[in-house]
Amino acid sequence: MKFIAEIDVMPLKEILDPQGKAVTGSMKNLGLEEIQNVRIGKHITLEIEAQDEATAKQRVDEACKKLLANLIMESYSFELKAV
Amino acid sequence: MKFIAEIDVMPLKEILDPQGKAVTGSMKNLGLEEIQNVRIGKHITLEIEAQDEATAKQRVDEACKKLLANLIMESYSFELKAV
Repeated sequence: MKFIAEIDVMPLKEILDPQGKAVTGSMKNLGLEEIQNVRIGKHITLEIEAQDEATAKQRVDEACKKLLANLIMESYSFELKAV
Repeated sequence: MKFIAEIDVMPLKEILDPQGKAVTGSMKNLGLEEIQNVRIGKHITLEIEAQDEATAKQRVDEACKKLLANLIMESYSFELKAV
C-alpha cells in the first residue's frame, strides 16, 4: 500500500524563532497589525510504500527522528493517508 | 475574536524541489528506501484578532499573498480555528 505523509516540523515554543519574529514585524508594515506571534517551521510531504498503516507510521516516525526534525530545537507531528 | 491560522506553503508540483530531492536521497542512505518523492515547504502558524471568521480568512489570505508565499513558485493553503 502507498501512503502520503504530511509532516509539520515546528520550532519548540520555548525557543525564539527569529524568522517568525521578523515576519511578525513585517505584518505591521503591511498594515496587518492584527496578526501576531508568527512562527515558521517546515511542512514536508512524502510518499511511503508499506504493508499497512502501522508500519508506515513507524517508518515515518523514524525518518522524522533521524533526519527531518532536530529534536533539541523542534517538534514534529504528522498525518498519514492511504492513496 | 482570536483565531489561530495554520498555513502550508509548498513549492508548486511543476517546480523542482532540490531540498526535497536531497532528502529523498538521504532516506536511502538511512535504510528508508520505501520513502519517495519528499517535498519540503513551510508551515506557518499565526494568531489573528478579527471580528469574525470571514474577516480573519480574508486577512490571512492577504498575508499569504503579500508576504508568506511567492505565488510564482509556491502555493498555499490554510485552516483557521477560533481560540
